[in-house]
Amino acid sequence: MAEENNNTTMVVFSGDLDKAIASFIIATGAAAMGDRVTMFFTFWGLNVLRKENYTSTENKNFMEKMFGKMMPKGPGKLGLSKMNMGGMGAKMMKKVMKDKNISTLPELMEMAKELDVNIVACTMSMDVLGIGKDELIDGIDYGGVATYLGEAYDAKVNLFI
Amino acid sequence: MAEENNNTTMVVFSGDLDKAIASFIIATGAAAMGDRVTMFFTFWGLNVLRKENYTSTENKNFMEKMFGKMMPKGPGKLGLSKMNMGGMGAKMMKKVMKDKNISTLPELMEMAKELDVNIVACTMSMDVLGIGKDELIDGIDYGGVATYLGEAYDAKVNLFI
Amino acid sequence: MAEENNNTTMVVFSGDLDKAIASFIIATGAAAMGDRVTMFFTFWGLNVLRKENYTSTENKNFMEKMFGKMMPKGPGKLGLSKMNMGGMGAKMMKKVMKDKNISTLPELMEMAKELDVNIVACTMSMDVLGIGKDELIDGIDYGGVATYLGEAYDAKVNLFI
Repeated sequence: MAEENNNTTMVVFSGDLDKAIASFIIATGAAAMGDRVTMFFTFWGLNVLRKENYTSTENKNFMEKMFGKMMPKGPGKLGLSKMNMGGMGAKMMKKVMKDKNISTLPELMEMAKELDVNIVACTMSMDVLGIGKDELIDGIDYGGVATYLGEAYDAKVNLFI
Repeated sequence: MAEENNNTTMVVFSGDLDKAIASFIIATGAAAMGDRVTMFFTFWGLNVLRKENYTSTENKNFMEKMFGKMMPKGPGKLGLSKMNMGGMGAKMMKKVMKDKNISTLPELMEMAKELDVNIVACTMSMDVLGIGKDELIDGIDYGGVATYLGEAYDAKVNLFI
Repeated sequence: MAEENNNTTMVVFSGDLDKAIASFIIATGAAAMGDRVTMFFTFWGLNVLRKENYTSTENKNFMEKMFGKMMPKGPGKLGLSKMNMGGMGAKMMKKVMKDKNISTLPELMEMAKELDVNIVACTMSMDVLGIGKDELIDGIDYGGVATYLGEAYDAKVNLFI
């Protein structure tokens, strides 16, 4: 009997720096062991995938503009889920990780790409929050709940983060 | 060899509107594909199942009354996990979803019932928070951790939300 | 064909009292049914494992001292994820659980040890937050993401809490 494959999926719902780091550490760890990994970014998790210095040229309604302005743009702007203290906590954690030579979130994301981690942005959440494809980083896929479930049913480890 | 069944379980611990929406989107998506889905509502997640305009006639002690008053009563009263801004964020999200013809939480919950999603309220949490069966919506089941584990061991996808 | 084993793993990322209680209820429930259970404590989850009245003698830098002082020391100091109200919510919940003869977190942790639940502290998070082995409770293991994945691939139920 063939070994069952050790695929891994994660729903990344949270847009917190610490949870994003945890999800990419698991993702790159699993991918480095040769496993297929799919990360499905939904709701606030989409903020992890936003380009840092980019303003969309698309027409947005009032709510979409407001969501767009208030939500963090990419890994450099994310806060911590605890002890964020107006961003100071996030800065402290980034400094500590750099000082101790632990991979930062942008480095982990780069590593994930090189290891062929499958990054999927949830199209329904993009619609709700008014985020366009041009506002997200390149080299990702797009899908809905059926895409997620298709991968999850084929995986051994499924997490909601 | 028979196909392994694609059962799905979710522990819905959170009582946040956005996480409740995410959990019911996964639940109805999986159920629509013919899979058995069990949602186990515990702690704050019980608030998702509370009747909106109902005051229990049971005798409650001081703490139970206090928990009962402070916690949101049903899907219409839930807040967002992020950017709630005293309820304005939740209102905004509900308006956007309605404008874009995306199913709202009450609609998703109705759909889940029609698709025979198995909704279980955690009896231990009900005891801790002083919530009676009369205060929760009809047509649900009741159980404890053994009920949950029984379903989870039989499922392919298990999430904690 | 042999029965697949019902191993369970949990990543305990959160350091909230309510989530810690939920994770240990699942862990002790599963272990009582004879299953192998591994809890992998990472980030704020490490606070659950801190000794309550202990000051490390190790040399710490400024950030490590600050993290160490600001983060809760052990189960008695944890707050709730919702309605904490400066610690009053946590006190209320502990009182209610005691009044209703529901196992408290320290009791659940004791039970987990007796049931041979495998408790693992994430060494990378310990490094980031500046937490030494001497500051964590006795009788636990230490490991990284590979340790976690090794257990997760062998389990039926994997949760991120």
